[in-house]
Amino acid sequence: MDNKQDILELLRSVARGQTSPEEALLSLKEEPFEDLDYAKIDFHRSVRQGAAEVIYGAGKTPEQIIGIVKTMGERGCRNILVTRIGQEAADELSAVVPVDYHPIPRLAIAFPEERPGRGNIVVATGGTSDMAVAEEAALTAEAMGNKVTRLYDVGVAGLHRLLSNLDVLMSARCVVAVAGMEGALASVVGGLVDCPVIAVPTSVGYGASFGGLSALLSMLNSCASGCSVVNIDNGFGAGYLASMINQMESIKEDKK
Amino acid sequence: MDNKQDILELLRSVARGQTSPEEALLSLKEEPFEDLDYAKIDFHRSVRQGAAEVIYGAGKTPEQIIGIVKTMGERGCRNILVTRIGQEAADELSAVVPVDYHPIPRLAIAFPEERPGRGNIVVATGGTSDMAVAEEAALTAEAMGNKVTRLYDVGVAGLHRLLSNLDVLMSARCVVAVAGMEGALASVVGGLVDCPVIAVPTSVGYGASFGGLSALLSMLNSCASGCSVVNIDNGFGAGYLASMINQMESIKEDKK
Amino acid sequence: MDNKQDILELLRSVARGQTSPEEALLSLKEEPFEDLDYAKIDFHRSVRQGAAEVIYGAGKTPEQIIGIVKTMGERGCRNILVTRIGQEAADELSAVVPVDYHPIPRLAIAFPEERPGRGNIVVATGGTSDMAVAEEAALTAEAMGNKVTRLYDVGVAGLHRLLSNLDVLMSARCVVAVAGMEGALASVVGGLVDCPVIAVPTSVGYGASFGGLSALLSMLNSCASGCSVVNIDNGFGAGYLASMINQMESIKEDKK
Amino acid sequence: MDNKQDILELLRSVARGQTSPEEALLSLKEEPFEDLDYAKIDFHRSVRQGAAEVIYGAGKTPEQIIGIVKTMGERGCRNILVTRIGQEAADELSAVVPVDYHPIPRLAIAFPEERPGRGNIVVATGGTSDMAVAEEAALTAEAMGNKVTRLYDVGVAGLHRLLSNLDVLMSARCVVAVAGMEGALASVVGGLVDCPVIAVPTSVGYGASFGGLSALLSMLNSCASGCSVVNIDNGFGAGYLASMINQMESIKEDKK
Amino acid sequence: MDNKQDILELLRSVARGQTSPEEALLSLKEEPFEDLDYAKIDFHRSVRQGAAEVIYGAGKTPEQIIGIVKTMGERGCRNILVTRIGQEAADELSAVVPVDYHPIPRLAIAFPEERPGRGNIVVATGGTSDMAVAEEAALTAEAMGNKVTRLYDVGVAGLHRLLSNLDVLMSARCVVAVAGMEGALASVVGGLVDCPVIAVPTSVGYGASFGGLSALLSMLNSCASGCSVVNIDNGFGAGYLASMINQMESIKEDKK
Amino acid sequence: MDNKQDILELLRSVARGQTSPEEALLSLKEEPFEDLDYAKIDFHRSVRQGAAEVIYGAGKTPEQIIGIVKTMGERGCRNILVTRIGQEAADELSAVVPVDYHPIPRLAIAFPEERPGRGNIVVATGGTSDMAVAEEAALTAEAMGNKVTRLYDVGVAGLHRLLSNLDVLMSARCVVAVAGMEGALASVVGGLVDCPVIAVPTSVGYGASFGGLSALLSMLNSCASGCSVVNIDNGFGAGYLASMINQMESIKEDKK
Amino acid sequence: MDNKQDILELLRSVARGQTSPEEALLSLKEEPFEDLDYAKIDFHRSVRQGAAEVIYGAGKTPEQIIGIVKTMGERGCRNILVTRIGQEAADELSAVVPVDYHPIPRLAIAFPEERPGRGNIVVATGGTSDMAVAEEAALTAEAMGNKVTRLYDVGVAGLHRLLSNLDVLMSARCVVAVAGMEGALASVVGGLVDCPVIAVPTSVGYGASFGGLSALLSMLNSCASGCSVVNIDNGFGAGYLASMINQMESIKEDKK
Amino acid sequence: MDNKQDILELLRSVARGQTSPEEALLSLKEEPFEDLDYAKIDFHRSVRQGAAEVIYGAGKTPEQIIGIVKTMGERGCRNILVTRIGQEAADELSAVVPVDYHPIPRLAIAFPEERPGRGNIVVATGGTSDMAVAEEAALTAEAMGNKVTRLYDVGVAGLHRLLSNLDVLMSARCVVAVAGMEGALASVVGGLVDCPVIAVPTSVGYGASFGGLSALLSMLNSCASGCSVVNIDNGFGAGYLASMINQMESIKEDKK
Repeated sequence: MDNKQDILELLRSVARGQTSPEEALLSLKEEPFEDLDYAKIDFHRSVRQGAAEVIYGAGKTPEQIIGIVKTMGERGCRNILVTRIGQEAADELSAVVPVDYHPIPRLAIAFPEERPGRGNIVVATGGTSDMAVAEEAALTAEAMGNKVTRLYDVGVAGLHRLLSNLDVLMSARCVVAVAGMEGALASVVGGLVDCPVIAVPTSVGYGASFGGLSALLSMLNSCASGCSVVNIDNGFGAGYLASMINQMESIKEDKK
Repeated sequence: MDNKQDILELLRSVARGQTSPEEALLSLKEEPFEDLDYAKIDFHRSVRQGAAEVIYGAGKTPEQIIGIVKTMGERGCRNILVTRIGQEAADELSAVVPVDYHPIPRLAIAFPEERPGRGNIVVATGGTSDMAVAEEAALTAEAMGNKVTRLYDVGVAGLHRLLSNLDVLMSARCVVAVAGMEGALASVVGGLVDCPVIAVPTSVGYGASFGGLSALLSMLNSCASGCSVVNIDNGFGAGYLASMINQMESIKEDKK
Repeated sequence: MDNKQDILELLRSVARGQTSPEEALLSLKEEPFEDLDYAKIDFHRSVRQGAAEVIYGAGKTPEQIIGIVKTMGERGCRNILVTRIGQEAADELSAVVPVDYHPIPRLAIAFPEERPGRGNIVVATGGTSDMAVAEEAALTAEAMGNKVTRLYDVGVAGLHRLLSNLDVLMSARCVVAVAGMEGALASVVGGLVDCPVIAVPTSVGYGASFGGLSALLSMLNSCASGCSVVNIDNGFGAGYLASMINQMESIKEDKK
Repeated sequence: MDNKQDILELLRSVARGQTSPEEALLSLKEEPFEDLDYAKIDFHRSVRQGAAEVIYGAGKTPEQIIGIVKTMGERGCRNILVTRIGQEAADELSAVVPVDYHPIPRLAIAFPEERPGRGNIVVATGGTSDMAVAEEAALTAEAMGNKVTRLYDVGVAGLHRLLSNLDVLMSARCVVAVAGMEGALASVVGGLVDCPVIAVPTSVGYGASFGGLSALLSMLNSCASGCSVVNIDNGFGAGYLASMINQMESIKEDKK
Repeated sequence: MDNKQDILELLRSVARGQTSPEEALLSLKEEPFEDLDYAKIDFHRSVRQGAAEVIYGAGKTPEQIIGIVKTMGERGCRNILVTRIGQEAADELSAVVPVDYHPIPRLAIAFPEERPGRGNIVVATGGTSDMAVAEEAALTAEAMGNKVTRLYDVGVAGLHRLLSNLDVLMSARCVVAVAGMEGALASVVGGLVDCPVIAVPTSVGYGASFGGLSALLSMLNSCASGCSVVNIDNGFGAGYLASMINQMESIKEDKK
Repeated sequence: MDNKQDILELLRSVARGQTSPEEALLSLKEEPFEDLDYAKIDFHRSVRQGAAEVIYGAGKTPEQIIGIVKTMGERGCRNILVTRIGQEAADELSAVVPVDYHPIPRLAIAFPEERPGRGNIVVATGGTSDMAVAEEAALTAEAMGNKVTRLYDVGVAGLHRLLSNLDVLMSARCVVAVAGMEGALASVVGGLVDCPVIAVPTSVGYGASFGGLSALLSMLNSCASGCSVVNIDNGFGAGYLASMINQMESIKEDKK
Repeated sequence: MDNKQDILELLRSVARGQTSPEEALLSLKEEPFEDLDYAKIDFHRSVRQGAAEVIYGAGKTPEQIIGIVKTMGERGCRNILVTRIGQEAADELSAVVPVDYHPIPRLAIAFPEERPGRGNIVVATGGTSDMAVAEEAALTAEAMGNKVTRLYDVGVAGLHRLLSNLDVLMSARCVVAVAGMEGALASVVGGLVDCPVIAVPTSVGYGASFGGLSALLSMLNSCASGCSVVNIDNGFGAGYLASMINQMESIKEDKK
Repeated sequence: MDNKQDILELLRSVARGQTSPEEALLSLKEEPFEDLDYAKIDFHRSVRQGAAEVIYGAGKTPEQIIGIVKTMGERGCRNILVTRIGQEAADELSAVVPVDYHPIPRLAIAFPEERPGRGNIVVATGGTSDMAVAEEAALTAEAMGNKVTRLYDVGVAGLHRLLSNLDVLMSARCVVAVAGMEGALASVVGGLVDCPVIAVPTSVGYGASFGGLSALLSMLNSCASGCSVVNIDNGFGAGYLASMINQMESIKEDKK
C-alpha cells in the first residue's frame, strides 16, 4: 500500500462505513515505520498527507539525522525537510545525500525536487529580522507544491507599506503573518483579508518581548476573526498548515 | 455596493491590476460603518466575508448590545452572534428582536435563520466540562452554514473512546479540538487526521492548569503538523475559522 | 506661599542658581501637608503643577475619602478627582460636598468647576468595552483644562474605521490609545501621527489576555516611535500625562 | 514633496477639512518607500516628524544594515541611528559611510551632523551600570537637536545624591529616568519635578530582577503622576519621545 | 520546664557543651504539644522565644480556632494572636474567651494583657490603603512588648512627607516598611537609616501590581543594604521579626 | 468480559505474545463505554485497574453527575467517587442513589461499600488548613481498600511534631505529603523514610504562594530521592497513586 | 551498624514500639556521615534504602566530586552515580577510580558493578531528542538492579508507534514517560496501562515550551490516574523512584 | 565631620529635637560624595553605618572599579568589598591597590584589614553547590567584624546532618540560611532557633528551579516566624544585614 491512491480508497471505504477503522488501522500497520532504535520513522504521514517529511534537527546528532534521511530517501521520500540544522551538520548531510541548504532559516531540503506552485500563499513579516522564520515557512510551503508570495518588512508602525500591497494580500488563499515584538501584524492583516491567517510569533526583540511571549499573547488575543496561532518561531508548522489550507479544494470531492 | 457579487468583482479587478487598491478602498468606504458613538458598526465584513456577524457581549451593557443588534438587523444582517451574554441580558434582547439563546455557551443568535449545512466540521472535546466552549464553536459554525458533528468526552486518557470514532474524525474537512487540563487531545487528533486541526484550550481545570495556560502551552507545542491554536475558551474564533477552511472550495475559481 | 506665581519665581531663582535647592526646599516645607493620621495631604503638587488633585479611592473607607476631600476643599482645591469609587461611596461623598459622579469609569469629581478646553487631546479605544478606562482618561484631562476628542471603537481589526478618522488623529497634540486584548491600537496610531502617544492597556478580554498582561506587553514592544505606556487600566495616569504634554507650551517661557 | 514645509501645508489642509485624509494619503504615497526586498525603507517618518531615522541593528546582517543606511544617505537623511550594533559591524559600516560609533551603548550614528541643542532634557540613572541604556537615550536626543544634561548614579538608596541635584532636575522640560533592580528612581523623580518623566527599566541586576521585569513592574506601578514607561533597555525610544515632548512648542503654531 | 529561665539554662548548657543537643531535645519533648487531631499545638515556641502565639485564621473553622485558643489559654498563654479572622468568627471567639478585635487588620488578640513597650520600632506605609497590613505588624509588635511608632502615608512620590519625619525614622532600632504598587519605600528608607529595615510588600494596587508581585520584586531588588523582605501582606511576620531584632540586647550575655 | 480475572488472563496472553495487542484491543472494545451524549462512560478502567471510579464534579451539572453515577451503578460499580461537588449537588445526588458525603473535601462516595484496609498509607499535612485536600486523598485511598493513617499539622517549622511520629512514618509503604505555603514537608519526609513519597501541593496560603505555585515548585525541586508530585490540590490523584503503589505486591504474581 | 539487616531490625523494633524513635535516631547517629568541609557525606541512605548513591555534579568542582566519590568508595559504596558531569571532569574522575561514563546523559557510574535486573521498568520517550534524559533514568534504574526496557520516539503525534508496542507497555510494573514540548505522552500512556506512571518533562523544544514548563504543566494536569511528575529533566529522580516502586514486593514481608 | 562619634552626636541631637533634620542634612552634605562622572561615591554610609563599603562589580569596567576603589581608599576606607568581579578584573585591581581575592564567591576585598570577630553568625547551606553564595555572605560578615561559623551541606533531605549541629545553630545570634532548589532549609532552621534567620535563595538547580525562583518563593512562604528573605544569590546583602543584627546591642543606649 505504497501510493496515495490506494490509501485514499481505503479511507473512503472507511468513510462510507464499508471498512471499520480498526480494519483500516491494521491494513495501515503493515511496515508502518522503520525502527532505527533512536527513531521510529513514520512513512504513513507521507502517503496519508501527500506532505513533505520533516525532521526537527535540534537535539539530534548529525549521525542520527543522516540515518533518518537516508532511510527515508530509500523509501522514496523527496523534499525531506530538516529544520534547525546548522551549516556544519548540513555539510555532513550533503556529503551523503543531495541537499539544498538555506542558511538564514537554517533549513535543509534533502532529495530536493521541483514541485509546481499551486494556489497562492502570502508570507508577510513585520520586520527584516523576522526573515529567518518567514523563510522557514515559505520554503516549507514551496517544497509542498504551493506558490508563495513574500511580503517582508510591512510592520504596522508604517501602515502605508502594508496598504500599498493590499492587492497582494487580497489575492491570497491563506496568509502567514510573521512578527515579533508586539505582533500586531496578524490583527491588521486579519481585518483586511477574507481568508485564513496563520500567525507566527517570533522571538525577535528584547526586554519585555520575553523571547516571543509578547507577540504570542498579542496574536492569541487578536480581535480579527479567522486568525490562529502556531508556536513561537515555528515557521515550518505555519508553512505546513498553509499548504493544507491552500490545497483544500483538491479533496473536495472526497469529503463532500 | 451591497451584495457580495459586486464586491467580488471589485476584488478581482484589483487582483488583475485594473483597479488600484486605493480606488477600491475608496469605493468600499461609502457608508462603511454606522457610528453609534459607543460603537462603530462595520457592515463590510459581512459582505466581504459572507459571514455571520459577532458581538462580544462581555463588558457591554444590554442597551449597547440591543442598539448594535437592532442597527445590524435593520441593515439586513441575519444570524447575528452575541457571545458571552448572560440569561438576563439575553431576555432583554429577545424582548426587542427575535433571538435563539443557548445557556450553556451563553450565546445568543439574533435574527436567526436556518442555513444549509455544508461540508463537515468535527468538534471534539476532552471532557464533559469543555462543552460550553465546544458549543460556542459548533453553534457558530452552524450559523455560518456548516454541517457540524459533535464528538464530546473523548479525552486521551481513555484512548479507545477516541479510536472508536476514528471514522467520524477521518471524514472531517476540519477538526476543532477543545480541551482543558493537559490539552493533549489536539496532538493526538492531529496525528490521526489529514485535515487542519484548530485547537481550543479551555480554562476548565484547577491548580496548575492556571486558567487554561497549561492547555494553551501544550497545544502550541503540539508535535503534530497541521495544528494551530486560538485563545483560551475562544469557541467563536475556532468555529469561525473552521467555517472559513471548510468552505475554501467555494472561492477556488476566484483565486486560482 | 500659596499661589503658583510665587512658587514659579522661587523655582526660577533655583534654576538661575540664586537660591540653593535646599533653601527652596525649606521654603516650600512651611505647612507642606496636613496630617489626618491615616493620610498626609499634600498641597504642594497642586500649586507646583497646577493640576487637579487625585485620590485613589480603592482601599479607602468612605469616611477617609470624605475627610481628605473636605480638607482639600477647605484649602481651595477644585476639580478634586476620586478614582475607583463606587456609587454608594460617591453618594455618601456627595451628601457632604458638591460632586459630579460618572458611573462608567466610577470617577467622582468633587468641587467641580468648568475649565476652558485648551489644545487637543484625542482619546481613542480599540473597542466599546474599553470605554470605562477611556472615560477616566478623558474626564481627567478635561478636569485639568484640556479639550478632549473621543474616538471610540476604532480597533485595528477594522482598519477603515481608524483611517476614516485620520484627520481627527492628525489634529491631536497628544493621543491616548486605550486597548485591551492584543493592544495593537497604540502601534498603528503611533505610526500614523507625529505627536506623543500614551498607551493604556486595559484588562478587557479573557483567556490569554491574562488581565491585561497581553495588551501591556504588546504596547511596551510597540515598534512605533513616540509611544510610552502606563499601568493597566490607569486612565487617570494617561489623562494626567496627556494634559502635561498638551500644555507644554504654557510653561515654555519659564524654561527657555 | 520632499521638504517638511510642503507636508506641513498638506497636513494643515487636512486639519482644516480642505483636503480629505484619503487624498492626503495618496499624495504622500508617491515614492513612499524604497523596497530593498529585505526591507522597505520609509522616508515619510523623516519628513513628517523631522526626526532622526533609526535602524534596529540586532538581527540584521552587516550587509543589510549597510544597504539600508546607504539608501537613506542617498536620499539625504542625516544622523541615522543604528542601535544595538557591535563594534565589528560598525567597523564594516564606517568603511562605507561616515559613522560616529559609541561602544558603551553600541550605537552608531551614520552621516553625523551637529544639531543645535534646544530645550533641556535630563537623563538620570540609578547606577553606573545603567549607563549603556542612558547613553542610548542621551545620544538619540542629542542627534535630534536637544540639549541633554546627564545625571548618573543618583539611585534612591543614597537620596542626598539626588537631592543635591534638585536644581538640575527642576530645570528640565522632560526627564528620562533610567534604572534597573527596583526601579524606584522614576517614582522619586516623578514626585519632585513637574514635567513628564519617561521611565526606562534596564536589565541590569541579577536574581529576582528577572532581566528587567522587576524594574518594569515597579515603574508601571509608580505612584507619581506624569510618569510613563518604555520597553526594558529601550534607550532609543525614551530619547525619541523625550525629544518630541521637549520640542512640543516648536509645533505649537501649527496645531493651535 | 515551663518558664523561660529554665529553658535558657538548658540552652546555655547546650552551648557550653555540657548537655548534648539530643539530651536537650528529649528534655524539651516532655509534653511538647497537645494533639487536637486537626492541630498539634506547640507550647515550646512560646517558652523558647518569649513570643506571643499566633494562629493563622484563614482556612480554619471557628470551632477549630476556638479549640486551639482555649487549649493555649489553659496552658497560660497570653496575647494569643489570631490573624486573618473575620468579624463573625471573632464574635464567636469572644463569646468564649476575652478578645480584643481589630477590624482593619482583621486581627484578634485573645487573653490580651498589657506589656511594656521597649525600644522603638517604626512602622511606615506608602499609602493609606496599606494600613491593614501595617496595623497587623504594629499590633503584633505591641503584643510582644515593643514600643511602636506609626508613620503612615509617607510614600516616595511625595518625598517631603518622608523627609519631614527623618527624626522619627532615625530614632528607630528597626523599621517595618509597608508598601504596595512600586514598593520603593523600602529602598528610600533603607538608604536613610542605619538599622535593619523589614520590607512588607502589599497586594494593594491594580493592573501590573499583579497582587503584590510588583512590590515584592521591587523590594527584593532594593539597592539599599540592610533590607530584607517577608511575604506579601505578611504584617504578622514583619512585626514578629522586628520584635526579635528590637529586643536583641536582652540575650547579649548569653551568646557572646 | 466483565470480571477482572478474564481480563487479566487476556493481558497475560498479550504479555506472553500469544495474543497481539490489536486483538486484545478489539476484544476489549465490545461495549467499551456507554455514550450519554455529554459523557462517554468508561467501564474498562474499573475492570482493568480494580479501581474506584471517579467523576470530576466541577463544571458538571447535577443532572449530568446523576446520569453518570446511575449508569455506573447499574453496571455494578461501587465506591464511585465524585470530587469537588458542593453540598447542594450532593443532596440532589443522594436523593437518587446511596451517598456518603464529606463536606470538608467536598467529596461524595456513591454506592459506598466497606473494603478491607490493606497495607499502610500515611497521609501527612503541614497544617490544619491542608485538611480538605488531605481528606480527599485519604478517603480515596480508603475507598480503594487501603489502610490509611492520618498525621495532620506536622509542618517543618515545628520539627519535633514530625520527629515524634517517626515510627508512624517509618511504618508506611507509601506517604502522601500534603502542604501549601513553602511545601517543605515533602523534602523532609522524603529524607526520613525509604518508601515512595507522593507530594501534593495545596493552594492554602496567601501572597507569594500564588495559588499553590510556591509549594508546587518547591516539591518539584525536592532534594530528597523517591518523591514525585501531583497537581495542586489533587488529593484524589495522590490517593489513587498511593493505592496503586501500596498494593503493588497483589499483582506481583501476574508480572513476574 | 553497617549492614542493612541490622538497620531493618532496628526499624522494625521502632515499628513495634519496642524502641523509641529517639533511641533509634541516636543509634543511627554513630558516624552518620563523613564531613569533608564542603560536603557531609551521608552513608545512611545507602544502608537504609539499599540504593545507589548519587552526586549532583553540576556546580561542584572536579576536586570536590573526586573527594566525595573516593570517600564513598572507601566505605564500600558501589554504583555511585554522578549526574550532569562533563566529559572532562569524568576523565579526571576516571583517572582516580573505576568509572563507566555515558556521554549522552552526561552520567558517570563510579565503582560500577553488575546487578541482576529484577522486575520490569519501561522507559518511553516522545522523541529522539529526549534520549539524554531517558538514558539518565534508565541507567539509574539499571544501576539499582532493575530490568529496563527502552521504548524511544513513540510520541503521540504518531499514535500507531505507541500502539504497536502496547504489549511492551502492558508488561511493565512501572513506566517512566519522558517527553518535552506538549508532554502528552504521560497522559496517553497513563490511560493505557494499569501501573504507576512517572512523568519526566524535558527541556527539549523551543518557543512556548519555555524550557520545559509546557511539558511540566501538561503532565501535572494529566487526566490519567496513576501519574505523578518529577522535575524537568530529572531522569535520575524518575529512575530512582521507578526502582523503589518496581521493587516494592521485596520489602513486602517487612511491612505487612 | 569625618569620624563616627561626631555624627552620632549630631544624630542624637536630632533625636532630642535640638537640631532639625534639615540642619543635620545640610551638615552632612559638606563633601557628601565625590563625583567621578560615572559614579557618585558616597562616604556617608561608611561613617553613618560603620560598615564596609561595597561595589557591585557586574556591569562596571575594570577602570571604573579601580577608579572607585582608589578614591575610597584615599578617603580612608578599608575592607572595601567588590562583589561579582572576575579573576581578570581582580588581577587588574590588585596591581593598583592591596586586594584579597576569593575566586569561589568572585569577591575582592580591597585595602583588607583584620577586624575582631564579635558575636556569632552561623552561615548554613543546603548543599555544596551553594558555597559561592554562602562565602559571599560569610566573608562580608567577617569583613564587618563578626565571628562567622560555617555549616555547609546540611540540607533537609538528610535531616540528621542538621540535627547533629543543633548546638552550633542554637549558639547563633543570627543565622544566614543559603539554599537553592526547594529552599526548605530556612523553614526548618527557623523552627529550630530563636534568633532572626536571613534566607538567601540561590540560583543553584535546574528545570523547575527557574533560576532560583522556586527557592525564593519557598522562603517567602516560610511558615517559621523570624525569617526574612533577600534577593536570589545576594550573599552580600545577607552578610551585611546579619552583621547589623549581630551587632545590635552596641547602640542600645543611644536609642532607648
